[in-house]
Amino acid sequence: MRYVSFRRPDGTPSFGRLDDEAIVELTGAPSLKAALAAGNLAGLTDGASFNRNDIVLLPVIPDPAKILCVGLNYAEHVKETGREQKEHPAIFVRYADSLVADGQPMVKPSVTTRFDYEGELAVIIGKPAHKVARADAMAYIAGYACFNDGSARDWQRHNIQFTPGKTFPGTGGFGPTLVTPDEAGDLASQRVQTRLNGELVQDQPVSDMIWDIPTVIEYISAFTPLAPGDVIATGTPGGVGDKRTPPLYMKAGDKVEISIGVIGTLTNRIIDEQ
Amino acid sequence: MRYVSFRRPDGTPSFGRLDDEAIVELTGAPSLKAALAAGNLAGLTDGASFNRNDIVLLPVIPDPAKILCVGLNYAEHVKETGREQKEHPAIFVRYADSLVADGQPMVKPSVTTRFDYEGELAVIIGKPAHKVARADAMAYIAGYACFNDGSARDWQRHNIQFTPGKTFPGTGGFGPTLVTPDEAGDLASQRVQTRLNGELVQDQPVSDMIWDIPTVIEYISAFTPLAPGDVIATGTPGGVGDKRTPPLYMKAGDKVEISIGVIGTLTNRIIDEQ
Repeated sequence: MRYVSFRRPDGTPSFGRLDDEAIVELTGAPSLKAALAAGNLAGLTDGASFNRNDIVLLPVIPDPAKILCVGLNYAEHVKETGREQKEHPAIFVRYADSLVADGQPMVKPSVTTRFDYEGELAVIIGKPAHKVARADAMAYIAGYACFNDGSARDWQRHNIQFTPGKTFPGTGGFGPTLVTPDEAGDLASQRVQTRLNGELVQDQPVSDMIWDIPTVIEYISAFTPLAPGDVIATGTPGGVGDKRTPPLYMKAGDKVEISIGVIGTLTNRIIDEQ
Repeated sequence: MRYVSFRRPDGTPSFGRLDDEAIVELTGAPSLKAALAAGNLAGLTDGASFNRNDIVLLPVIPDPAKILCVGLNYAEHVKETGREQKEHPAIFVRYADSLVADGQPMVKPSVTTRFDYEGELAVIIGKPAHKVARADAMAYIAGYACFNDGSARDWQRHNIQFTPGKTFPGTGGFGPTLVTPDEAGDLASQRVQTRLNGELVQDQPVSDMIWDIPTVIEYISAFTPLAPGDVIATGTPGGVGDKRTPPLYMKAGDKVEISIGVIGTLTNRIIDEQ
């Protein structure tokens, strides 16, 4: 099953199920996050149906309370950054007001000259998760989506903490849909692929992660409680623009796409901040 | 003026003004954060009065949407960490579910062996602040409080991002009251002092900050919009326990106090996580 958050033609926010090209609104909960929290997503009643082209998608979860990002989770990316591999993952944070949906513009901040892509697999938490054991972790997943952890590399490196470069408004692509685990199937061989203006710039299978999804859930939930709708962006493969020779940054007019097997494709155009 | 968030004797959350030892409940807004957002804190109506000893304080703002922490903002602390000073501050994030109030226990996570104090001055934002110029920044401050950025040093250093060690539940002391800028007066000569079991372990004036308060507000609001009730913890002086010889960590039964001049004293006892 695939679920989406969207704006109705009248502009009001809603959510529903994607059936091929039709979006079937779901009634009985105020939002996708609330439906996850209530644990009744599969039991909601169908409402109005919209053509996908008549509505505007919102970020899969528009307002996660926590978005935790795993840094340096693919060996090839660790290598290109010149950093050493550690025993535990690097975890930093992005705020919900930095998210944009599939089809919305991603905004290049005016104060950066090094705006970079990071294609990632996002995990969406489905039930309260605190101190979850690795063996149990997969049961806490509501679904998956594509994520583009758009990064202002200069601000990310102003000092030793990444925060400033990782949460500018409009820089975090998150979509197009929440794909449930049964529909996602075995993710190991599915490839995280980033295309910039059609050129393939990142391309590694999910199985290349250093810390796999249950390990990441165990680690994060050990230090902070997770709630339904929270998001873990599981890290980016090698090939980021900042580490290329010459560097490859995103600029207004560019089209960036994150594709992950059956999870789908997240597409955003870059615009300059107004 | 001093404002507090608290639980009434019946357990319900509320907020009010501290008049000497009396807490005068304020009516007309659901919370201190909401009153800041509405911009009507000074105009609210007095309600019931409680003796301070009859109520339980809550964190000054129990649920800030954003808590941004400045790392390495006192030269003496930069020096003791062995890090180089950079042109811009280090910024990391703590979540609201890690906060505890004055008088509540601070919780030593069971998974850390290196639980450390960090006395800090907290700035509470009073109105929406995005891309604020340094010269205008002081007008965006609702008030000040003491902060204890309790840190699991082992988890903080698991990798290159501090997040895991900085947001365990029950590790962030925040209180006792919000002190308005007029009452706080000139902060420059006021000293950030931490006492562990009565022993003075940190003691530097606010004027020792490398990036002063308006500079920090300008920098942070350049990359993320701040809202009323958001908190900036402005960094800790030298003297943290982890850099002492031998190291000095907090353990169950310890009493830790953060005092800052007229801002007051935040007192917490340490307990082991259950």
